[in-house]
Amino acid sequence: MKITVLGAGAIGKAYAAYLSSRGHLVTIWSPSGRALGRLSSGGVLSATGICEGEFQVTVASDAAAALAGADLLVVAVPANGHATVISAIAPHLKNGQTVIISAELSFSAVLMAQAIKARGLDVPVIAWATTVVTAKSSGADSVAVSLLRKRLDVASIPAGHVTAAAELCADVFGVAFDEKPSVMATALSNLNPPAHMAIALCNFTRMEKGEDWSSYGGITEGAGKLMEALDEERLALAASFGLSVRSVFDHYVHSFGVERGSVGQMAQTVAAARPHVKGPATLDTRFVTEDVPFGLYPLVELGRLAGVKMPLHESGVELFSALYGRNFRAENDILPQLRLEEMSRAQLLDLVG
Amino acid sequence: MKITVLGAGAIGKAYAAYLSSRGHLVTIWSPSGRALGRLSSGGVLSATGICEGEFQVTVASDAAAALAGADLLVVAVPANGHATVISAIAPHLKNGQTVIISAELSFSAVLMAQAIKARGLDVPVIAWATTVVTAKSSGADSVAVSLLRKRLDVASIPAGHVTAAAELCADVFGVAFDEKPSVMATALSNLNPPAHMAIALCNFTRMEKGEDWSSYGGITEGAGKLMEALDEERLALAASFGLSVRSVFDHYVHSFGVERGSVGQMAQTVAAARPHVKGPATLDTRFVTEDVPFGLYPLVELGRLAGVKMPLHESGVELFSALYGRNFRAENDILPQLRLEEMSRAQLLDLVG
Repeated sequence: MKITVLGAGAIGKAYAAYLSSRGHLVTIWSPSGRALGRLSSGGVLSATGICEGEFQVTVASDAAAALAGADLLVVAVPANGHATVISAIAPHLKNGQTVIISAELSFSAVLMAQAIKARGLDVPVIAWATTVVTAKSSGADSVAVSLLRKRLDVASIPAGHVTAAAELCADVFGVAFDEKPSVMATALSNLNPPAHMAIALCNFTRMEKGEDWSSYGGITEGAGKLMEALDEERLALAASFGLSVRSVFDHYVHSFGVERGSVGQMAQTVAAARPHVKGPATLDTRFVTEDVPFGLYPLVELGRLAGVKMPLHESGVELFSALYGRNFRAENDILPQLRLEEMSRAQLLDLVG
Repeated sequence: MKITVLGAGAIGKAYAAYLSSRGHLVTIWSPSGRALGRLSSGGVLSATGICEGEFQVTVASDAAAALAGADLLVVAVPANGHATVISAIAPHLKNGQTVIISAELSFSAVLMAQAIKARGLDVPVIAWATTVVTAKSSGADSVAVSLLRKRLDVASIPAGHVTAAAELCADVFGVAFDEKPSVMATALSNLNPPAHMAIALCNFTRMEKGEDWSSYGGITEGAGKLMEALDEERLALAASFGLSVRSVFDHYVHSFGVERGSVGQMAQTVAAARPHVKGPATLDTRFVTEDVPFGLYPLVELGRLAGVKMPLHESGVELFSALYGRNFRAENDILPQLRLEEMSRAQLLDLVG
């Protein structure tokens, strides 16, 4: 299949290498103009880890070239780049193509679907709850791919497309995809924003001082209590939309195979097994810069719309904004375009369906 | 002078020893029934530090005995004990006596004044912004007194009594007292609640893990930014009541003689000079258990009453409640008695005047 990866960071390069290794014809485009080393002059992409090797991929010079001839488009930038990529690719989309948002935060799939609708096209949008791989850049044209997830949640717009979406994704990426009823379900299933809030807040000076610390070890009993309380807000919000999502307790049991206990207890068990998973050693971490404006803040807005109180999520947005001296609300460039604040609950559900 | 100290913790014993050393006749009463060792059977109170020596003080068996014959009463329990002590002593007060609240948080001086008014008495209430000494218990009948402050803020109810109050306090305690226009001014001048919130939140897992860490060193640039933002809320609240209070910047310059900079910069300078000042090495610290319900929460309620937004103070109350699995709002047993929520701004100002 002809696949274009939109994004040339660690995840973008990892997808390009991994999809090449699976026999696809891959084009890569860097919306930010990131240098791609030898790749830009016909050289190869080097990968280590999950997909060891050198891969020939095409570098596109602009959005038009990136989209021309592609069957599948994979948006592979962090959430704070979604709005930019969506507005760049929308004018060049054609019927017959499919867009994957990897991974959705803050209803960027809805923004993509709105742009498609505005052009009168019939292009399905697939939203993942997280990325298929985790990776780190090892150079301009090289990447270390550290993890291939065995299964991911998938939703689509239109929602009726989800079974075809799950089949397509499984075929292309070779892992399992679990169908979710709507992008609302994936948004409310995402445990990263509350987990990262608790970890980053309770270990704030460790991050700022650049200490060497265990991320799971930083989820003490107290930090775990905060995650549990954040979880109650999220579950109540999901319930108000008629959705049943996995609790943080179930997530730990399911993802790590630990015995059920308090989140703090389960996290300490995970920490003992995974001491190499380090907490951020800088304030410039996506735990905050991505998850606060694009993860916590949208849930606050959803809560307002649904009449569900989200005081701890609000507190997170407020406190991190003060700690960083930044307005993290204003950094979200997706919600204002969706005009969520002018929407009724029914209009929103119509959109995300 | 005949002085009764109400409270037999570190501060109560320190006052008893210090006031004895200044030639006063001191009675001490433990509202919680705390054991006073040899003191209860006629033995002496041993003190080290600021007032080295052994002091003969009388132990009162109940509130009635504690108040009988006393000229001056010093309430020397933490804020979470104020309501209990106030209701215990109110029935036994007499005209001619004076009550000092050391130190006021959460308008406990107002509660004391209301109880006095209800009995038709004319007993002035003096409120301090902090304690005259800092101390640690070294045994049931011994105490280590580590610091005698050179000057303190003082307010009184009625407010017109403040000059007499400052003179009385200076005479009895031998340090300087600066007159404040009202107990509202002392409440809004207190920098401990916001400072302790920033320190405890940003270093939460250090406290929980019992680490050895510098309290001022824990005020990083980011934690300092939070203190600065909390300060803006407090200053706006004070301004709404026509009060001008010292900013956190002025506080650092004034208290520590450091060069003006960001709070984080100034704190690191203080940390270098005072490395022995350690942060709490347990979650059971008054930085949280006293300052959240009796320091932050009252400012949230005042903000509501004055129509001033206090989102960061609210966030502190919310987050610590979640981190501790406790409802810190409900632990404040003073505000409900004051019926602040039913009060207009004018009624409140009438009360605190």
